[in-house]
Amino acid sequence: MSVVEDNSRRRGGRAARQALRAAPIPADKAAVKPGMSGGNYTPLSQRDVERIHESALEILETVGISDCIDSAVAYLTGAGCEYRDGRMYFPRAVVEDTIANANRDFTLYARNPQHDIQPTGKRVHFGTAGAAVHIAEPETNTYRESTLGDLYDAARIVDRCEHIHFFQRTVVARDLEDPRELEINTAYACLAGTNKHVGTSFVDPLHVEDGLKLAHMIAGSEAAWRARPFMSMSCCFVVPPMKFAEDACRCLEAAVLGGMPVLLLSAGQAGATSPAALAGAVVLQIAECLAALVYVNAIVPGAPAIIGPWPFVSDLRTGAMSGGSGEQALLTAACGQMGHFYNLPTGSAAGMCDAKMPDIQAGYEKGMTAALAGVSGLNLVYESVGMHASLLGFCMESLLIDNDMIGAINRNVRGIEVNDETLAIDVIKSVCLDGPGHFLGHDQTLSLMQSEYIYPELGNRMSPKEWQEAGKPNIIENAIALKKDILANYHPEYIPLDIDAKIREAFPIKLPRNRM
Amino acid sequence: MSVVEDNSRRRGGRAARQALRAAPIPADKAAVKPGMSGGNYTPLSQRDVERIHESALEILETVGISDCIDSAVAYLTGAGCEYRDGRMYFPRAVVEDTIANANRDFTLYARNPQHDIQPTGKRVHFGTAGAAVHIAEPETNTYRESTLGDLYDAARIVDRCEHIHFFQRTVVARDLEDPRELEINTAYACLAGTNKHVGTSFVDPLHVEDGLKLAHMIAGSEAAWRARPFMSMSCCFVVPPMKFAEDACRCLEAAVLGGMPVLLLSAGQAGATSPAALAGAVVLQIAECLAALVYVNAIVPGAPAIIGPWPFVSDLRTGAMSGGSGEQALLTAACGQMGHFYNLPTGSAAGMCDAKMPDIQAGYEKGMTAALAGVSGLNLVYESVGMHASLLGFCMESLLIDNDMIGAINRNVRGIEVNDETLAIDVIKSVCLDGPGHFLGHDQTLSLMQSEYIYPELGNRMSPKEWQEAGKPNIIENAIALKKDILANYHPEYIPLDIDAKIREAFPIKLPRNRM
Repeated sequence: MSVVEDNSRRRGGRAARQALRAAPIPADKAAVKPGMSGGNYTPLSQRDVERIHESALEILETVGISDCIDSAVAYLTGAGCEYRDGRMYFPRAVVEDTIANANRDFTLYARNPQHDIQPTGKRVHFGTAGAAVHIAEPETNTYRESTLGDLYDAARIVDRCEHIHFFQRTVVARDLEDPRELEINTAYACLAGTNKHVGTSFVDPLHVEDGLKLAHMIAGSEAAWRARPFMSMSCCFVVPPMKFAEDACRCLEAAVLGGMPVLLLSAGQAGATSPAALAGAVVLQIAECLAALVYVNAIVPGAPAIIGPWPFVSDLRTGAMSGGSGEQALLTAACGQMGHFYNLPTGSAAGMCDAKMPDIQAGYEKGMTAALAGVSGLNLVYESVGMHASLLGFCMESLLIDNDMIGAINRNVRGIEVNDETLAIDVIKSVCLDGPGHFLGHDQTLSLMQSEYIYPELGNRMSPKEWQEAGKPNIIENAIALKKDILANYHPEYIPLDIDAKIREAFPIKLPRNRM
Repeated sequence: MSVVEDNSRRRGGRAARQALRAAPIPADKAAVKPGMSGGNYTPLSQRDVERIHESALEILETVGISDCIDSAVAYLTGAGCEYRDGRMYFPRAVVEDTIANANRDFTLYARNPQHDIQPTGKRVHFGTAGAAVHIAEPETNTYRESTLGDLYDAARIVDRCEHIHFFQRTVVARDLEDPRELEINTAYACLAGTNKHVGTSFVDPLHVEDGLKLAHMIAGSEAAWRARPFMSMSCCFVVPPMKFAEDACRCLEAAVLGGMPVLLLSAGQAGATSPAALAGAVVLQIAECLAALVYVNAIVPGAPAIIGPWPFVSDLRTGAMSGGSGEQALLTAACGQMGHFYNLPTGSAAGMCDAKMPDIQAGYEKGMTAALAGVSGLNLVYESVGMHASLLGFCMESLLIDNDMIGAINRNVRGIEVNDETLAIDVIKSVCLDGPGHFLGHDQTLSLMQSEYIYPELGNRMSPKEWQEAGKPNIIENAIALKKDILANYHPEYIPLDIDAKIREAFPIKLPRNRM
C-alpha cells in the first residue's frame, strides 16, 4: 500500500468518495447487469416439483385440450398426439420428447445487440407487458383510456430505463378501432420507441403477416430478420382450463412459420379458470404450456418458444384478479422454479399491483412480487414495471420509479460473492488493529463503492432534516418531471426516414412522424 | 358429493362465496399463522456459509474485541477466552462449545399465551423495533419529535395488528429528558399498550433493575416473571468493528442475571463500521454476535439469547444509512441463513425504508426487504413495520398498512402445499370433462377461500371503475381514519388498576392513567 493510499485511507476518504461518485461507471464495473443468475429461492421442494410435473403429464394424457383447429389437429396428431371426441390428448412420451428436444438455448435479439437477451439457465431479465386499457395519471389522480401515443411514450421511457431489459406492448391503443390498424400500429410504436427486444401480440394471422412484413422492412430483408428476430409474439393460445383459443392458435402458427419467437402464455386465474389450490393452478398452467410446446415443435422443430405459465390470483370474495397478492408472488416464483426443472426458457408475471395509483400499496405489492420472482431465477419477468389495477392501468411515473426498484431487485438476484477478498479478514484486521477503527476511507470501500452497490435515481435517501431543508421532495412529483423531460427531449431515431417512408406507404401508420 | 353441494357448484357459487366471506374464520383455518417456517431462500451456498463461519472464528481468534469491562474480563477468561493487551481473544474451541451448548429452544413469552413466540428452527415472526426519534405524520407531511404517548399508541395499534407478532420499543420518548425516567416509562408504555411479547432497551444497569422490578410487579412475583419472562432486552453490546460498548455490557449482565431474554445486537454499517464487501459485513456481525453469545453463556449457561447480526448498508456517496436498499435485503436474508447454520434463534432487520413518508418508494423498499427476510426463514424480523427514513422516523399509518403487507409476506413464508388434494387432478378432470368449465363454484374453491388466501384490510383491490365510483379511496386517508378510530376506541387494560397504583408509587410514570 503506497503512502498516498494510506493517507487517503486515514483521512476518512470523503473527498475520494465524492470524486469517485462523479466519475462514470464502466459497464464491466456496474453493480448489476442484465441476465444475472437467480434461483436461490425455491418455494417448492424437489419432490413437489416432480409431483407437479407428473400431474401435468397426467392431465395432458387424460383430460386433453378441446377446441383444436384443423391445422393443429394435423400438426399434433402428426407428432403423436391423439384426437378423440373433440379433445386432443398428449401421450406422456410425446410431451417428454418435446421437452427433451425443445430449443432451450436461443437469444431474444434486440436491434441494438447490447440489449440482446438470453433467457436460458437461471438468467433473469425484467420487462414490461400488457395489456392495460387505461393510463393512470397521478398528476390528476385519474384514469383515462390509453392511446397509441402512450404506447410510443412508454417504449421511449423504457428505452431510457437501465434496469428494464425488454419492452413488451404495455397498453392497448384505444384510439384505434380497426383491429388490423391497431396491431400494425402497436408493433410500429414499440419498434419506433426502443431498440430493446420488443414483444407484441396479434389476434389474426393476417396481422401476424403484417407484423412480419414490417419486421422485414426494418431488418432490411426477411433473411436479416430471421437471423436476428428482434420482436416476439405473446400468444394466449389457451383459454384455461384446457381449451385452445382458436384465433390465437392460427396466429401462433403464422408466427412460428415466420421465425418470430413466441411466448406461450397460459393465463389462468386461480379459483376461476384454474384450481383455487395454488399447486393445482401451477399444474394446469404448466400442462397447457407443455401442450403448446408440443404444438410449436410440431410446426417447426426447435422454434424459439418461451413457456409462459401465468397463474393469476382471484380475490375469491369478488372474483376480481389480484396481481399484487402474496399468493401471486408464490405462484410466479413456483413457475420460475418449474422452468428450471425443465431447463426451458420461462416467463411469468410479477411486479403487478392491485393499487390504482403509485402509492405505498403499489410499492409493497410490486416489491414483494418482483423480488421473489427475481430470486426464483425466472428468466423473463413480464409486467414488472408500470402496471396498476391488476393490469388494467399503466402509469409512466411508476415505470420510472419501478426502474429503481428493479435495479435493487437485480442486486438481490446477483447475490453475495464470497471469496478471500470479500470475506475481508485482512481488511477487518487492518482496520481494528492498525487502522482508524472504521472502514470509511479504506481502499476496499472506495473500490467497491460502484461495483458492490447501486443507487436509485428517483428514490430519496435524505435524512428527515435534509429532506425538510430540500423542500420535502415528493417522488411522484419528481417522476412526473422526469417523465415530461424524457418525453419532451428524448427522440431516438430507431426507424430511419427512408425506411419509415416505405412503411407508411405499406401500412396505415397513425403515429405522426413529427411526434417521433 | 351431495345433490345440494353439486347444485351450489353448478350455480357458479357467488352466493355461497358471499355467505362464506361473512362468516368468521376459525383460527385453525386461517391462511397464515405466526411462526410458520421459511428457509426456501438461501442467498448463500453451503460452502459460502461455512466460509463466513470460518472467517468469523478467525476474526474472533486473531483480532479479538477491545474495551472489555472488568466483569466481562472475569466472565470471559473464566470461560476460556484470552485477554491480552487490552483485547479479548476468543479461541475457536470456546466459540464452538458455546454454539453447541447455547439455548436454542426457548420461548419469548407474551402475557397472553396465545402470543407466545418460539424463535427456533426456521420459524418466522415479524415485529417492530426502534429507535425512531421522529413521528412521520402523513396527514401534514411533517416530521415531529416522538413522545411517550406515541410509544403507547404504537403499542396499542400493534396489539390490534393480526400479522405483527411482537412489539419492540419503536420510538424514543423525547418528552422525557432524564434517562432513568425515560427507560422505565418506555418499558411501562410498551407493557400498557400490548400483551404481545415486548422488547425494550436500557443504557444503565440500574435501569435494568427498574425494568425487572416493574416486570416482577406486573407478573405478580419474581418467580412468576422468571417462569414466563414477557419482556426482552435489545442490547447493542458492541460498537463495530470489534469494540465492546461498556454500558451496554453492564446492562447485558444485569438482564441475563435477571432472567430477561436478550437480543445480542451487532449493528454495523457496511462501508463505515463494517466492511463494504457484503460478505465481510456478515462475517464481522456474526463474529461479534458469537462473542456476545460466549459472554452471555459465561454469565448464565443456557440463558435465552437471540443472536442479532444486523449489518446495515451505507450509501457510500454520503455515508448515510440505507435500510431500504437491495443490498440490505441480501444482507438480512444472509443473516437469516447463517442463523440456520448455527440453529440459533436469530433476529435481524427488514422492512425498513429510506423514504420519509408512506409513498411508493417506502412500499417497494419495505416489500422487497421484508419478503426476502421472510422467505429466508429469519426467526425474528425486527423493524418490519412502520419505520421510515432508515429508522429515524416511525409512522402509525405505515404500521397499519404494513400489517397488510406482512400478512401477504406471511403467506409467502407459508409456501405452497403440494399433495393429492392441492394438485387438483380430479378437480381439473371434473371441471373440464363434466363440469361448468370453470372453478368458481367448485367445492374446492369454496373450501379454500379462507384457508389458501388472505385478504388485506386497507389494501384496495377494486377495478378502476369501482374505485372511481367509490370516490377514489386513498390508502393513506383510510389509514389515518383507522389509526384515529383505534386510538380513540381501543383501550386495553393490560395493567390492572391495583397493580398500576403500586407501579406509580414505585416509579415516576408519566403516562397519565386517564390516557390509558
